[in-house]
Amino acid sequence: MSTLDLLNWRYATKKMQPSSAVPAERLEYILEAIRLSASSSGLQPYQVLVVTNPELKAQIRAVAWNQSQVTDCSHLLVFAAWDNYTAERINMMFDLVNEQRGFKNDGWEAYRQQLLSHYPQRPAEVNFEHAARQAYIGLGSALIAAAEQQVDATPMEGFEPAKVDEILNLAELGLKSVLLLPLGYRAAEGDWLVNLKKVRRATQDFVIQRD
Amino acid sequence: MSTLDLLNWRYATKKMQPSSAVPAERLEYILEAIRLSASSSGLQPYQVLVVTNPELKAQIRAVAWNQSQVTDCSHLLVFAAWDNYTAERINMMFDLVNEQRGFKNDGWEAYRQQLLSHYPQRPAEVNFEHAARQAYIGLGSALIAAAEQQVDATPMEGFEPAKVDEILNLAELGLKSVLLLPLGYRAAEGDWLVNLKKVRRATQDFVIQRD
Repeated sequence: MSTLDLLNWRYATKKMQPSSAVPAERLEYILEAIRLSASSSGLQPYQVLVVTNPELKAQIRAVAWNQSQVTDCSHLLVFAAWDNYTAERINMMFDLVNEQRGFKNDGWEAYRQQLLSHYPQRPAEVNFEHAARQAYIGLGSALIAAAEQQVDATPMEGFEPAKVDEILNLAELGLKSVLLLPLGYRAAEGDWLVNLKKVRRATQDFVIQRD
Repeated sequence: MSTLDLLNWRYATKKMQPSSAVPAERLEYILEAIRLSASSSGLQPYQVLVVTNPELKAQIRAVAWNQSQVTDCSHLLVFAAWDNYTAERINMMFDLVNEQRGFKNDGWEAYRQQLLSHYPQRPAEVNFEHAARQAYIGLGSALIAAAEQQVDATPMEGFEPAKVDEILNLAELGLKSVLLLPLGYRAAEGDWLVNLKKVRRATQDFVIQRD
């Protein structure tokens, strides 16, 4: 299927089959799409947790408006952004780039210094907001990759991030939860949304030409 | 190509061929992928400007670290998020959903009231930040769709948003720029990044299992 077909196929699944497991290779495919996604300065300032533990899922559901997909899903992805940009994190990614490419590049090193002189001085909240946005690029990739694997997914912001952070001990990792993405298979008979038309604003109300 | 192949093919193009136009149907395909992307509560709280006017491109380049892709590109996409969530905007999208689906749904109407009683009361800055995040989902789709169309793209946050807003008169539309995405074709001979390895953290440093 083309990307447009995949985007049309997917929808925010409201009811998932509780006992249908997503095969490991499909899960890995989706995670790989997230990992390969673009991010600002290539920092990848987030991590993805894969929660399958039933007790953890139940605890998260309790702070996520009791949405059933959180426990019915096969795998619950939690996108968790860096709580701050530190010199250590910036150097970690720039060092990795040098190591992987096998050489140092002057322009790249100058760019590292630019980030080092700028990001760690900003308030943590500003840095977290910036990092959180990058996770949404990964979400965009994940939704297309999941559809390609015929796996249903429900992007969710409806949860209490501070409580999810506590349940998953994210503070000790320097992370804060920003998105939930249950993965699984639709239970069509119990899903009010599955047969409803996908609604988007018309192109002329979404795109503005400046010729 | 699979989604993973597309993600591997793409890179943040550093030098574009100045006179290579992206055909209209390929541009439309990319815009359609953005338009079909998921967004929080389906509000699509952003618009996409397609800038081809050479003078506007030059003005934007001047406030975007003089990055050459801004003027060399075929089409410059500007993702611009709603500056606030207003009752009018929320009602516009919920009314559109009812109109397109041809009926009113009690649960959906209750959800409308929930948003109306919550979003417009928050500070504009909080709402803008939330809207801006949604644009990044669209960016995730755009990068995959562009790769599928063999169109190069350069996601950019390196610009002065307030100045771009002024150049494009976004305030009068209630919008604020959050991302630039030049679309075009790579000029491989002048692009320092084109042949370098794409670097991402290893899966074990990006994914955390909670079984």
